[in-house]
Amino acid sequence: MNDRAPSYVKPGESFDRDTNYIEDRITRDGRDGWPVEAGRYHLVAARACPWANRTTIVRRLLGLENAISLGLPGPTHDMDSWTFDLDTDGRDPVLGVERLQQSYFTRFADYPRGITVPALVDIPSGGVVTNNYPQITIDFETEWVDHHRQGAPDLYPEHLRAEIDEVAELIFHDVNNGVYKCGFAGSQKSYDRAFATLFSRLDWLEERLTSRRFLVGDTITEADVRLFTTLVRFDVVYYGHFKCNRNLLSEMPALWAYARDLFQTPGFGDTIDFLQIKQHYYLTHVDINPTGILPGGPDTSRWLDPHGRESLGGRPFGDGTPPGAPRADERVPAP
Amino acid sequence: MNDRAPSYVKPGESFDRDTNYIEDRITRDGRDGWPVEAGRYHLVAARACPWANRTTIVRRLLGLENAISLGLPGPTHDMDSWTFDLDTDGRDPVLGVERLQQSYFTRFADYPRGITVPALVDIPSGGVVTNNYPQITIDFETEWVDHHRQGAPDLYPEHLRAEIDEVAELIFHDVNNGVYKCGFAGSQKSYDRAFATLFSRLDWLEERLTSRRFLVGDTITEADVRLFTTLVRFDVVYYGHFKCNRNLLSEMPALWAYARDLFQTPGFGDTIDFLQIKQHYYLTHVDINPTGILPGGPDTSRWLDPHGRESLGGRPFGDGTPPGAPRADERVPAP
Repeated sequence: MNDRAPSYVKPGESFDRDTNYIEDRITRDGRDGWPVEAGRYHLVAARACPWANRTTIVRRLLGLENAISLGLPGPTHDMDSWTFDLDTDGRDPVLGVERLQQSYFTRFADYPRGITVPALVDIPSGGVVTNNYPQITIDFETEWVDHHRQGAPDLYPEHLRAEIDEVAELIFHDVNNGVYKCGFAGSQKSYDRAFATLFSRLDWLEERLTSRRFLVGDTITEADVRLFTTLVRFDVVYYGHFKCNRNLLSEMPALWAYARDLFQTPGFGDTIDFLQIKQHYYLTHVDINPTGILPGGPDTSRWLDPHGRESLGGRPFGDGTPPGAPRADERVPAP
Repeated sequence: MNDRAPSYVKPGESFDRDTNYIEDRITRDGRDGWPVEAGRYHLVAARACPWANRTTIVRRLLGLENAISLGLPGPTHDMDSWTFDLDTDGRDPVLGVERLQQSYFTRFADYPRGITVPALVDIPSGGVVTNNYPQITIDFETEWVDHHRQGAPDLYPEHLRAEIDEVAELIFHDVNNGVYKCGFAGSQKSYDRAFATLFSRLDWLEERLTSRRFLVGDTITEADVRLFTTLVRFDVVYYGHFKCNRNLLSEMPALWAYARDLFQTPGFGDTIDFLQIKQHYYLTHVDINPTGILPGGPDTSRWLDPHGRESLGGRPFGDGTPPGAPRADERVPAP
């Protein structure tokens, strides 16, 4: 560990996620100064990050690729910033910057909080418009409607919004952020509490998903996107690295089949890069994996095993259709 | 991490186990000065340690409890020594010492190597006779015959010794020590190599044990004891802590059933304390688990699930019988 190494675990403390974000919204009416406009905004979303992954999935499902370009920082970052180390000459080709921090500083010269992904950047000015991920996907679904592809599904149907929000809230605290509370616990007590809460919520989800194909209604919604991004990282990272090891996801039959069903649906699995996910967690969190060794397992090809969930009925895309193949420059390796 | 914290991982290096031990033997003819004699020697063997676990199992299977007393250091130790912190007033009741190091220094005032368990201590002089664990169990089996209980099995039958030695040698390098080579690897390359070797050997064992109940012959032998002590720690520690995560033991049907079969055999499972095992690895290796958090999983009660291995035939104790219940002062918690 060196002086530049970030510290995620605070001895004696529970993990407390900073949920203050830049809350500007890009809307049809442009009331915050940021009108919906094809080609104007660049979505910066590392493959590794579960919060960013929500936005890459929703962008794919809705066919927003031509309206909103995608910047992909590498899997690791230092104390200060995500970096565009995967790009030729280490610069994002649209923004021309090496570090996402530059786009934050362009917006606010003294931006004091974490440099997070996803971030939507205004290409003309080079500044970050918003990093408020729970709102970003909702706005993709409700404000960017004119730019959706033909056959785009309704991921946030009006009559189901209350239920989606309610389920998503439980999932956020207990699962999405719950795994971090386990992994970054600064005391045995805070770990034990987070561990119990996480698995009790997963048991609840296992039961809910035993008789229904999707979380809310009979089609894929925003709630499924939010659960998926944690489930897809569970066995490969959270089980070992974050000590979420009561059982593997693959030991929960309904949840595991549900997750595979989504993975095999166009727009989900084609946003997942398991190697980048491993690299992110095992290399970045030097205070819980000081050796920096990447584990060799588990076998991620099992994500392609048949899931058998069709027998539960459901219409994944409702009255819509699946998206086509990803753009050539946005393809991920096979699992 | 503090100055007194031991370091197990040497950056850039593979893990290299010091296999130099005090090689004196306790024999019937007493040729090294240590004749077999009931009540004279004290076996110091932490529940946590897989190498010590071999000796506690063999002592139980052969019924040597009345001939050789047992000292049980706690699960954790510092740089210098295992300690008797579980005993009343922190002293081993037979030896009267607080730290096993004292028994090593009584034997050799300048003993330069690690203070390891198992160790056999000569009670009259208070000095360690031997810590050479691969020999200790063989000597229990072949030199202590006059003190075996009635019905004790032959764990090292003459006509199978060559095969037992051969299998045990492969298991030692690739599995028993193989998991440590994964966990203490100082480079990605040495980890990757150890990981591949470990799982290729487990695949070989999985196949071997699909059609035969035990490793060598049709009864329990020394080879099974040596494999068991690693398998029983696999899911609870090695999978996560040592990154041996291609798959859980419980995902290898034959090996998992084989391990449960042994666990449920008197003399095996009744030497296992899963909490002490977890505490040992997760609290002692501060350089790979700096937070000192103990994981909550996995569920160890599954070790009692039916194993169905009877259908393969085999006679666990050969012409002998299982041992009776453990002594009251040597009982372990239920899994």
